[in-house]
Amino acid sequence: MLLSGGQDSTTALFWALQRFDSVEVITFNYGQRHIRELDCAAQIAKIAHVPQKIITLDVLSQLTSNAMMSDHPIEINKESQLPTTFVPGRNLLFVTLAATYAYERKMPNIVIGVSQVDYSGYPDCREETLKSLEKTITLGMAFPFMIHAPLLYKSKQETVLLAKDLGALDYMAYTHTCYKGESPPCGLCPACQLRAKGFEVAGIVDPIYDQTRQRSNPPDILPQ
Amino acid sequence: MLLSGGQDSTTALFWALQRFDSVEVITFNYGQRHIRELDCAAQIAKIAHVPQKIITLDVLSQLTSNAMMSDHPIEINKESQLPTTFVPGRNLLFVTLAATYAYERKMPNIVIGVSQVDYSGYPDCREETLKSLEKTITLGMAFPFMIHAPLLYKSKQETVLLAKDLGALDYMAYTHTCYKGESPPCGLCPACQLRAKGFEVAGIVDPIYDQTRQRSNPPDILPQ
Repeated sequence: MLLSGGQDSTTALFWALQRFDSVEVITFNYGQRHIRELDCAAQIAKIAHVPQKIITLDVLSQLTSNAMMSDHPIEINKESQLPTTFVPGRNLLFVTLAATYAYERKMPNIVIGVSQVDYSGYPDCREETLKSLEKTITLGMAFPFMIHAPLLYKSKQETVLLAKDLGALDYMAYTHTCYKGESPPCGLCPACQLRAKGFEVAGIVDPIYDQTRQRSNPPDILPQ
Repeated sequence: MLLSGGQDSTTALFWALQRFDSVEVITFNYGQRHIRELDCAAQIAKIAHVPQKIITLDVLSQLTSNAMMSDHPIEINKESQLPTTFVPGRNLLFVTLAATYAYERKMPNIVIGVSQVDYSGYPDCREETLKSLEKTITLGMAFPFMIHAPLLYKSKQETVLLAKDLGALDYMAYTHTCYKGESPPCGLCPACQLRAKGFEVAGIVDPIYDQTRQRSNPPDILPQ
């Protein structure tokens, strides 16, 4: 299960915990904008009692430069019509590496929290891409992988409701979303606004803004 | 063009030079058994006058352990029937990373020197895998990649003859094949024997054993 420390992957983690007997998470330290996201992932893995493998990956910064991995402003690239936060091949790379790890552990199910809806136009978040990738890793390692993307067709609102159904709403307090890396979140950047709208339409208060809860120790018991 | 410094990728490089106006090579330093292979790749890129991007990749050693990346003896894993030199997902990873680099450089053609014939059972060297991977990177980056594997159906003998046809035979003196990393090659390990058989059946003397040539400065002119 690929855990970034964000709202979506955290929801996907709780989906995986409900679906599978044994879950392990893999987190990539690839030079993302805010190291805080990694702290969130580690904290969430800890409170969910799942083993976490952290992979240090400096290869993307050797190959490409983009706004997600630097302090450049986030804009839309006029030529490609993709946001400047697009890291070409990032999810392909992450899933391929997760598959290499899963192969060694004989775990055929790979869970990723990507969504086609409310997304920013990333071509590696589409079902067609994931289906092709599933086939590629299955053929390339001769191992019957299945890629699960439980949020693929969910809006942010539906993701919030799924988290609620999974009893994982409280854990959203420990996720990271803000592009500016602020805590509490700035509430103004595109990521914060997208998240806020999801909670608002779902009619649920986002626990991330509840600083009392955020500062307290995380619960040590998994949701039932 | 993915250049390892071996006989196959070097032959594929000269195939690419004949086919495309502009060629660049990418080489991965991933903790392979012999650093000598990297020196060979750098020397070949230099004498072929192609820009080389060297990517340091310690992620495979974080994820997996195998004979190709250590001093373990090379054997066949009885369970998977794959050689212990199989690094799961290695070519998937290399091609995905090459595609990320090529995407930024707007280069749609990716050349790799893998072969289905005379190979050791690696599932990531099969046409079906490469076709699926081609589709995956094309979808995942929304860029029309083509993967070329000019040696896919060639035996070692045919690869030697292709190198001859391409005028690249002399350059085979600068390649690395020996599993033991010896120079001149040990001639006894499976890799040396496979190579030797290819040259023998093709009726051509392998220039790698010509130490006079090997010690001299490499030619500075590309074959016509």
